[in-house]
Order: sequence, then C-alpha cells, then structure tokens
Amino acid sequence: MINEKMYELGAEPSAIRELFAYGMQRKAAIGDDKVFDFSIGNPSVPAPEKVRQVMLDMLDTDPVALHGYSPASGIPSVRETVARHIRDTYGVPAQANQVYMTAGAAAAIAISLAAVTHPGDEVIVISPFFPEYSTWIGASGCTRVEVPAQVPSFQLDVPAIEAAITQKTSVIIINSPNNPVGAVYTRENLEELAAMLARKEEELGRPLFLLSDEPYRAITYGVEVPYVPAIYPRTIVCYSYSKALSLPGERIGYVYVSDLMDNAAEVSTAVAGAGRALGYICAPVLLQHVAAACVDEPSDVEAYATNRALLTEGLSALGYEYVEPDGAFYLWVRALEPDAQAFSDRAKQFELLLVPSDSFGVGGWVRVSYCVARETIENAMPAFKALAESYAE
Amino acid sequence: MINEKMYELGAEPSAIRELFAYGMQRKAAIGDDKVFDFSIGNPSVPAPEKVRQVMLDMLDTDPVALHGYSPASGIPSVRETVARHIRDTYGVPAQANQVYMTAGAAAAIAISLAAVTHPGDEVIVISPFFPEYSTWIGASGCTRVEVPAQVPSFQLDVPAIEAAITQKTSVIIINSPNNPVGAVYTRENLEELAAMLARKEEELGRPLFLLSDEPYRAITYGVEVPYVPAIYPRTIVCYSYSKALSLPGERIGYVYVSDLMDNAAEVSTAVAGAGRALGYICAPVLLQHVAAACVDEPSDVEAYATNRALLTEGLSALGYEYVEPDGAFYLWVRALEPDAQAFSDRAKQFELLLVPSDSFGVGGWVRVSYCVARETIENAMPAFKALAESYAE
Repeated sequence: MINEKMYELGAEPSAIRELFAYGMQRKAAIGDDKVFDFSIGNPSVPAPEKVRQVMLDMLDTDPVALHGYSPASGIPSVRETVARHIRDTYGVPAQANQVYMTAGAAAAIAISLAAVTHPGDEVIVISPFFPEYSTWIGASGCTRVEVPAQVPSFQLDVPAIEAAITQKTSVIIINSPNNPVGAVYTRENLEELAAMLARKEEELGRPLFLLSDEPYRAITYGVEVPYVPAIYPRTIVCYSYSKALSLPGERIGYVYVSDLMDNAAEVSTAVAGAGRALGYICAPVLLQHVAAACVDEPSDVEAYATNRALLTEGLSALGYEYVEPDGAFYLWVRALEPDAQAFSDRAKQFELLLVPSDSFGVGGWVRVSYCVARETIENAMPAFKALAESYAE
Repeated sequence: MINEKMYELGAEPSAIRELFAYGMQRKAAIGDDKVFDFSIGNPSVPAPEKVRQVMLDMLDTDPVALHGYSPASGIPSVRETVARHIRDTYGVPAQANQVYMTAGAAAAIAISLAAVTHPGDEVIVISPFFPEYSTWIGASGCTRVEVPAQVPSFQLDVPAIEAAITQKTSVIIINSPNNPVGAVYTRENLEELAAMLARKEEELGRPLFLLSDEPYRAITYGVEVPYVPAIYPRTIVCYSYSKALSLPGERIGYVYVSDLMDNAAEVSTAVAGAGRALGYICAPVLLQHVAAACVDEPSDVEAYATNRALLTEGLSALGYEYVEPDGAFYLWVRALEPDAQAFSDRAKQFELLLVPSDSFGVGGWVRVSYCVARETIENAMPAFKALAESYAE
C-alpha cells in the first residue's frame, strides 16, 4: 500500500529529465558529438574560480566546526551577508532573520508553498511555466490555476490574472527571467501587477502572496530585472545559486521573505516550520560559505550570449520562429507542426533533443536549452536544417 | 493566512535545538569553557582525513561535470558503490536501483514516510524516540502511536508493538543504535519482531513497513548491530553519513529499499516520487562523491568510547542512575526529580545543558550528549556533583 500519488510522480519523470536520460543513453550508443542535447538547464559555464578557492580555504579550517550542523535557517553570518547584498543591490531593508538558506530554489519553492497555503487553496502560474511547479503545488494539496502570458511579448497578462483570482487564491508564482521563454518582466508590467494585487487583497480581505522564482536573475542580456519586493510588499523571493555560480548539483539557495510585508516575521517562522516538516535540517554548510563568499561575484554570461546569438541567427536563417530571450538560457521555438510532442519525436530522428512545450502548459512549441558547448550549436545546424526540410517535403 | 501548522513548527523549535541555542548565547556571555553543553548530537571527532582528500581531488576535476545536476536518485556509480558496500558487508542482494541518495537521514525519513503512507495512517514509534519523528509523521498526515521500550533493557517490547498494530498501521520506526538511550537491538529481539510482523501482515492483509533509522550504525562499543533487511524483508533503511563521517551539516545519506521485499521496485519508485514532491532535486553532488569514496572508511569511535567511560564512571561515583549505552553517543540519565523539565532547568543553574526527556515521549530522564571535548566532561563533574547535592539538601 504505497502512496499512489508518490508512485506516479516517481514513475512519470519530467519530460525534461526523460529526454535528458534518453540523451545520455543515445550518446553512449553513438558518441557524445553525434547527439545535440538541448534538453536540460545544466550550466555549461564552469563555476567561477572563486568557488573553488573558497572551498579550498574552508577545507583548511577546523573540520569539526566546518562540517557541523548550522542553525536550521542557516549560518548567521551567511544570512547577514545575503541580507546585506539584497540591501545594497536593490535598496530594500532586508534583515538577516528574513533570509532562510535552502538546498536550492526547488526546496525554496516547496517550502514557501507549504508555509503560506492550505490544502484546497489555488496557486496561479503563468503559462508557459516551469513544469515542476505542478509537483510542488500538488504536494501542498493546492490546485494549479494557469493564466497564459501575453503573446508574443510573454509579459504578464494582468487583467487575465485578476480574472483568475478567487477567494481561494493564496499565491501567484512568477519567474523572471523566465524559464522556458526567456522573458523578463518590465517594471511597468510588475507595477501593474502589484497595483492589481493590492486592490484584490483589499477587495477579498485576504493576503495574496507573490512568489518570485529567480534562479536566472544573474543571466540577462542587457535588460534590467526589477526587484520584485521593491514593487509588491507581500513577495517571497526564491533564489538559487545553481545558475549564477554554475553549481546546480550542490543545492544552495535561499528564501527571502520581504521585510516590507505586514506579517514578515510570522511568514518567516512558517517558512522555517515548513522546512522542518519537509525534512530539511540545514542547507549544505560548505555551500553556505561559498554562497556568502561569492554573493557579489558576477556571473559569466558571455558564453551564453554567444550561444544565444549563434542559435537565434542560425534558426532565423532556417526560417524558424522563436521568442527573442532577454534572460536565462532557453530559446522558445515554434514547433513546425501543432503537436509539440510529435515535433520533438521527429527531431530525435535528427539527434536533436528539444523539450516539447506540453509539460510547460502550452502546445505547439519546444524549449531549446542553449547552456551547451558552442560546438553543439554549430554542429546542430545541419540537423535543424534537415528537420525543417523534412516538413517542407 | 499562513499555514498554522507550519507556523507552530517554526515557532516551537525542538527542545534540543532550543537548549543548543541557549548554550550558544550563554557561552558568548560567560565564556565557552564555563558552559557544559551536552545538548546536541554534533560529532566532536573531525571528519576522516580522507574526506578532505576526496574533496581536494574532486576540486581538481572539471567543474562543469563535478557541480552539475546528478540524476534525482543519485550518481549511478555512487548508488552502485553503496549497493556493493551493503552486499559485501551484510550479505543481502542489494542493487543500485534500490538505493536513493538523500540530503541526510532526515530527508530519507521524511521521503520514506511520504512514499509508503496515506493521510490517516498510523506510524508506530518506540519511546523514548527521536523527537523529529513526530514532525515528519505529522507532515505525512499520519498519527504517531507510541509503544514504550522494555525497561531497563530498552529492547523492543514485541508483544506491546503487536497490541498497537491496527488496520491503519503502515510503518514501524526503529532506531538502533538508539537515540536517546544508546540501546542496540539484539538479533533475537529483531527476529521476534520480524516473526510478529510477518504474522500480522498475513492476518491484516496489508503490508507493514519497518523503517530502520540507522545514523549511528557505525558508532558502537563492542556489540553487533544486526542488519535489519536481512531479518525482515519489508525494511526501508534510512542511513546518514553525518555521524559516521562527522559531516552533519553537509547533508548526505541514503534510502535503501530492501531488494527482498515483494514490491521493491514499486516502493523505490514511490521514494523517488516523494523526494520530487518534497523539493529534493538531487543529494549534494560533491558529498555524493565523498560518501562513495569513504563508504568503507572506519569511523573513529575511540574518542566517544573514552568520553563514555569518563562520563559513566564519573556519574556513577556521584550516584546518578543511567542506561549503559551500547552505541551512539548519548547517555540516558535518570532525572533527580520526576519533572525532567524542572531538572533540566535546575541543571542550567550549574551551567549544565541536559535535554529533558519529555520531547522523547517519556518523563523523568535527561539526555546527555557526550560527543563533546573530553575536557567538557572532566570539567563538568563538579557541576554534576553540585547539582546532585542541591537535591540532597
């Protein structure tokens, strides 16, 4: 009598992970350079040298102190450093006790949802959305409500979000820079959202939390990423160093419950309680030190910018339609037939691994992760050409 | 409208953590050497040199490959190494696909409970028990059912466990070597349990999972710790390297779903699904490598054995009553008044931090963690003497 819901989650891995696993098998069969794997968001840029240096330095300190438990919310000096970084960078009055260190953004989101929802609540996501939101919303016993982004800008459709808010709505999840489309919400767009949410809070007499999932904040191409807590007070930021420092497997990030919301301390307490309930003891301590030491370290986006240019120019020349990304390292490309899964399956015949859009909540597109070696993009172009030609026949 | 259950969990930290936090403040106020902190199970023995060496070696490898995502269940070669270790050490046919790497034993237990229970089920714990079991049982929507251990042996009381099993029972959690009493269940005791569970499974027509929480397996004083999956097939082992390798803050351990149970693959799948639901992406990858490289590394128990002798001889001479521990690094000492909290409070006046037994599910005892510097025990003896004398007045 195992739990069927958990069994189903285990038996049906995400479309992304499934394609990634197929890619690993395929590479083993025909050679790494023969498979053009655009499936997963595993950074292709190495972690900054400073990450290694901090780890080496820490390994020269007392191992008992270094590897011991930290307080559940994180090492006090690390939380203070993160708060200081938020204050200095974004001008909001962040305090250390509102920062809760986590094992990455996934933990941060799962914990935050558990902290501010009740079973039966509704959580709004903007489609296309990161598929795992569905898993964590479901795990909290809540219902996912999808609101499409504006097309083709992929900005927030504020009137549509307003229309979707009910007496059961607790949380709206936004993700900018966006996975999968690469959109970055403008300040005006976020201000329109904030004004509407403030009005709806008053109207409904219940708090509406904005969960800002920001693992790609550092990966942008010349645009501003407004800081959401400075625009809407009831914001919970879920941050990860996975992409910024190229450490996705090490699991380090944080929850920042904005000091500007009226019940900030209570929400932080609930976040700590939810972390405890979900089996988190403390974020990995060596990585907490790394995060603090590298908090102001710039991300190396040059390689991604080069890849983005190569990919968009190449696909443009071949007649593909796509959304010009302002951030993250994904290109959202129109499938050449209405059925994205069928398109992804056909792409496999050309050894192209493209994630179909269905699990992101919309049909007809594929996600192309360009956090890959530059050669992968260059060498994939004939395959993209052959794929397009196969539809022209 | 935050989640009240989560708020309460955050607002009421564990008695252990609360005392630990008090100790940190107190040390800052009057000096480290003036406070005798026996509150927390933070290993006092440094991690083996091999841990550092493996980390240094790994930091010389390609950082993109090193720090990237691993599959959710763990790095395939690491899972195979753990399975090989289980096969070689315990003679059970462990396969890699039954091993799921986790962020420590806490994650392993939270995940396992979510995988094999349904809301409303009953989970049996043996009192005194590790207090956080209550948190994770509650988080799964289950009810905790307490069955006292035999006194004074603190072995399992199998007839009492049998009497507590109902049509709603899903899991029995055991913990040997035991936190807080240091008991190690004998082979005969576990065989009696296994025979009873097999009979009850047949009688009730439902599976009864034995969750064996084993973070202290490597910390023993000359006794055998029988391997539970070799005795009862429907066993899920929750293991952690926190104590064995002195890495509690780094969060690395595993779930092993015994290959010998009839639906082993399904249970493993549900474990993977539960990990996903709770926000775990993969166990920290650098630590996965450390665990694999150190899988056969012996634990340094000599310092704990010395502390154990010092503490038991000292307290014995002062007339304290305690349970002779066969494993772990805790001494279970009879409080000198019926109210354990009052006794713990009075001990504080002598700068002795002893965890009252109430949160472990029984009254009248305190837990004394002897994973401390040897001098802490030596210097604490006058305080223990004064505490005892304060009751003789």
